[in-house]
Amino acid sequence: MTFMVEDFADTTAAEVDATVDAAASAAGAWAARELADRARVLDGIADRLDAHAGELVPLAMRETHLPQPRLTGELKRTSFQLRLFAQQVRDGGFLDVRIDGADAEWPMGAPRPDLRRMNIPLGPVLNFAASNFPFAFSVAGGDTASALAAGCPVIVKANPGHPALSRAVGALVAEAIAECDAPQGTFGLIFGRAAGVRALTHPGVAAVAFTGSTAGGRALYDLACARPVPIPFYGELGSINPVFVTADAARSRAGDIASGLLTAVSSSAGQLCTKPGLVAVPEGAPVLAELIGAAPVPTGELLNEQIAAGFAGAVEHMRAHPDVRVLAGGSAGQALLLTTTARAVLGDRDGLMREMFGPATLVVTYQDTAELLELARSLHGELTVSVFAEQADDTTRALLAAASGVAGRVLWNAWPTGVSVTYAQQHGGPYPATTAPATTSVGTAAMTRFLRPVAFQSVPEDLLPPPLRTANPLDVPRSVNGARPQ
Amino acid sequence: MTFMVEDFADTTAAEVDATVDAAASAAGAWAARELADRARVLDGIADRLDAHAGELVPLAMRETHLPQPRLTGELKRTSFQLRLFAQQVRDGGFLDVRIDGADAEWPMGAPRPDLRRMNIPLGPVLNFAASNFPFAFSVAGGDTASALAAGCPVIVKANPGHPALSRAVGALVAEAIAECDAPQGTFGLIFGRAAGVRALTHPGVAAVAFTGSTAGGRALYDLACARPVPIPFYGELGSINPVFVTADAARSRAGDIASGLLTAVSSSAGQLCTKPGLVAVPEGAPVLAELIGAAPVPTGELLNEQIAAGFAGAVEHMRAHPDVRVLAGGSAGQALLLTTTARAVLGDRDGLMREMFGPATLVVTYQDTAELLELARSLHGELTVSVFAEQADDTTRALLAAASGVAGRVLWNAWPTGVSVTYAQQHGGPYPATTAPATTSVGTAAMTRFLRPVAFQSVPEDLLPPPLRTANPLDVPRSVNGARPQ
Repeated sequence: MTFMVEDFADTTAAEVDATVDAAASAAGAWAARELADRARVLDGIADRLDAHAGELVPLAMRETHLPQPRLTGELKRTSFQLRLFAQQVRDGGFLDVRIDGADAEWPMGAPRPDLRRMNIPLGPVLNFAASNFPFAFSVAGGDTASALAAGCPVIVKANPGHPALSRAVGALVAEAIAECDAPQGTFGLIFGRAAGVRALTHPGVAAVAFTGSTAGGRALYDLACARPVPIPFYGELGSINPVFVTADAARSRAGDIASGLLTAVSSSAGQLCTKPGLVAVPEGAPVLAELIGAAPVPTGELLNEQIAAGFAGAVEHMRAHPDVRVLAGGSAGQALLLTTTARAVLGDRDGLMREMFGPATLVVTYQDTAELLELARSLHGELTVSVFAEQADDTTRALLAAASGVAGRVLWNAWPTGVSVTYAQQHGGPYPATTAPATTSVGTAAMTRFLRPVAFQSVPEDLLPPPLRTANPLDVPRSVNGARPQ
Repeated sequence: MTFMVEDFADTTAAEVDATVDAAASAAGAWAARELADRARVLDGIADRLDAHAGELVPLAMRETHLPQPRLTGELKRTSFQLRLFAQQVRDGGFLDVRIDGADAEWPMGAPRPDLRRMNIPLGPVLNFAASNFPFAFSVAGGDTASALAAGCPVIVKANPGHPALSRAVGALVAEAIAECDAPQGTFGLIFGRAAGVRALTHPGVAAVAFTGSTAGGRALYDLACARPVPIPFYGELGSINPVFVTADAARSRAGDIASGLLTAVSSSAGQLCTKPGLVAVPEGAPVLAELIGAAPVPTGELLNEQIAAGFAGAVEHMRAHPDVRVLAGGSAGQALLLTTTARAVLGDRDGLMREMFGPATLVVTYQDTAELLELARSLHGELTVSVFAEQADDTTRALLAAASGVAGRVLWNAWPTGVSVTYAQQHGGPYPATTAPATTSVGTAAMTRFLRPVAFQSVPEDLLPPPLRTANPLDVPRSVNGARPQ
C-alpha cells in the first residue's frame, strides 16, 4: 500500500488564537444576519461544491483512495445536505419560538408575565473533521453545515488524511461567505493535532463537534469538560452496529443476508461508522456456509497509513483471542470474516465488542433464542442495531426493545450503512457511540446542537427579535400559549 | 439564630446500590406505561401534595424558616407544575415524532428509506434537591416532575436542610406510584453527601439534575464527566442576575426601582437563584438616595446553618474588598446593600461578580453609558439579566444584545424573582449559571433533558411503538416529511 499525502504545515499557536478570535468577533454579526442571507451562504457553498466536482473528486481520490463513484455520490450528498439546511433556515422552525401571553389568572398562583422564547446560536463551533467522509463529514460536511445554519461561526480542524482537499473546500466555503458579505471570521480552517487542542481550550470556542476514534474523542471530551468554562462536546466515537439474524431469517434468506453482509462490510473498505462489526447468527445456519463459500470480496486500499495501522492492530487483537478464528477472507485487499460464539462474547464484552475500523466483522454464533436475547441485552451504546427476521413475535419484539435501549437507530431487514440525510434521521446513540446521546450529527435535527434558548420577559415589541414580534414578520412557526406550532 | 433540623441517618452504600438497581430494573416498565398512566401518576402526586398541605407547610416552616405564605404559594406552584407536566404527557408533543416516508427519488442521490423517529426516556435520573425551594426544587419539584413525565425513574438525593419534609413528600410520591401499579423502583430517596456521590458514579444512573452552589455543582459535574460512561449533568450553579438601570429610569422612577430592589433582595431572605446580586445605577442618581433613606428591610432567618455560614463568608469576602463599602442596611436580620464602582468591578470581575446567597446585593455605580455598556459586555453566564429603561434607543438595544448573549432570560422593567412555570419559560443559561446552556429546569421544555431520540428504519407497523404507527392511535403531534407538526 502506498500513500500520497502532501505535507501541510501545522497551524501555529498564534494562528490558532487569531482564528478563534476572528470567529468570536464574527459571532454577533453572523448570528444577526437575516435568515435568508444565512441560507444564501449555505446554498452558495453547495453550488460551489457542485461546480468544482471535476477537480475536487480527483483530489479526494488521490488523498483517500476511495473510488470515484463513492466520492461523486458523497459530494452530491454533501451539497444536498447544505441545501436542506438552507431550507430549514428559511423555514425558521429550528428557532422553536414559544410565546406565552400575560395571564393574570394563570393557575400557578401568580400572574404569568409576557414571555417569548426562541433559540439563538451558541457561538463559535470547533469541528474536528473525520477521515472517512472527506466531503460529508469534513470541511463542508454536516457539522459545518448545521453549525453555520444555526448561526454559529465554524472553525474546522482539518483531518490529516486529506489536507489538500480540505484547503480546496475551505477556499470555496470562504468564497461563499465573502460573496454574501458575511464576516471573514465566520469560517476558519486549522491543521495539526496541537492546533486542535489549543482551539478546544480557547475561551472563544463555545461548542465542539467531533467524529473519530473512541480513544481520541474521549481525550478531547475530557479536555472540553475540564475547561474553566466547560463547553458542549458532540462526539461521535465508536460503534460496532450489531446485526441480529433470527433462525427463521438465517434459514430462508441465507444467500441474501450473506451477500448483503459482505457488501456492508467491504464497501468503502469497511471504513464507515455504521459498518456492521458484529453479526449474530444461529449455530450451523445455512448463512455460515454461504459466507464461507462466497467469492473473496476485494476492498481497495485503506484511507491512509494511520487508519491502516489502527485496523491492523484491531484485527490482531481480535485474532489473538483464544475463542476467535477466521471464518473466511482476510488475504491482502479482501474483507475478513472472523467468528466466535455468543458465549465467548458474553464472557469478554470489552474484548470482543470492539470496533475494527476497516473491512472486517465478527460473526457470532448463538445456540438458541435465550442466548441471542442475552447477547442483545448486553450491548454497549451503539449508533445502530439491525434485526433480520421473518415476522413479529416475542423474540423480535424483545430484540427491538433491547435495540432501542442502546442505539440511536433500529433497522429491520436493512443494513445500517448508507445513512440517509432526512428530517427523521437519528445518527447518534448512548456512549461510546456518542458523548451526547440526545443529539444527532446527521439529519435536520443536527442544528439543535448549536442553539440555546433565550426567553424575553415583558420586552416591548420594537426591542424584540423579529421572530418574537406579535406580527411575526418572518412567518416562522410558533407555539402560542402551549398550542401546537402554527 | 437557632435551627431545628432533625437527625436523619445517611443512606448506606448498600442501600444506594439497591435503590439505583431498583430504578434501573423499573426503567423499562415505567417507560412502557401508557402516556395516560404516566400522567395519572403526576396528577396523583399533585393531589396528594394539595391534600396534605396542612401538614407539609408547617413541617417546611420548621425546617427552612421560610414564612407560611411563601411556602403555601410554593406548594401550590409545585402541584400546578406536576399537573402541567401531566398535560404535556397526554399531549405527546414532547415525543417530537418525525416520520419520513420512503422516497425513491430523494434528491440526496440515494433512495430514502422509511424512517420514523421519536423521543424515548434516557433512564434513571439522579436529582440533587435544592435547599431554597423545599417543594418546587426538591423531592416532588420540577426536576422530579419533568423526569417522571419523560418516562424516567427518579432517585432524589434529599437536601440536608429539610430531611423530614423530604421523607414526608417522598412517601406521597411513592404512594401515587403504587396506586397506579407502577414499579416501586420508579422513585427512590437517598440521604447524605457520600450517598449522592455513590449514586452519581453508579452505572445504573443515566442523567443527573442538580441545583445548588457553583463549587458543589462543579465537583459533581466533574465526577459525571469522568465516569467510564459519562452522563448528562444538568446543573444549575451560580448566578448574580445583574440589573442595569439607565440614567432615564434611575431619574424618573427612583422610588419604584429602590423599593422593587429591596423586595427582590430580601424576599425569602434573598435565598433565590434569581435574586439580583448586582445592580448598576448611574453615579449620583436619585435611586441611591432612595436606597439609603429606605426603612431597613427585615429578612427573616436563613434556611439553615450551612447556608448562613456560606452567606456570611461571601459577604465577608465582598466587604474585605478595598473598593467596596456599605450603602445601607446589614444589621442582624436586615437586607444588606453594598456598593462599589463599575471601574472596580471591571478591574476584578472574578472577585466582585460573585454570588452572595442571602439578603445582600452590590450596587454598582457607573459614570456614563460607555461604562454601563462595558460592564454589560463583561458578564459571565447568568440565569437572568434585567434592564430598567424608559425607551428603545441605541443604549437599550446594546444592553439587550449583551444580555441575550450571556443569559437564559432577559427582562424589561421587571425583577427576575418569581420564575413563572409556563411553556415559554427558560430557566438556564451559559456557565456558570448552568452546566448545560441549551436546557431549562423550569417550564415545559424541562422534559427534553431526560429524553433521547431513536429512529426506526423500515420497521413493520405492528412492531413500531404506537406513536410511530401510521394510524397515530394516540393522536400525538407529528411532523411528516419535514412539514410542521400536526
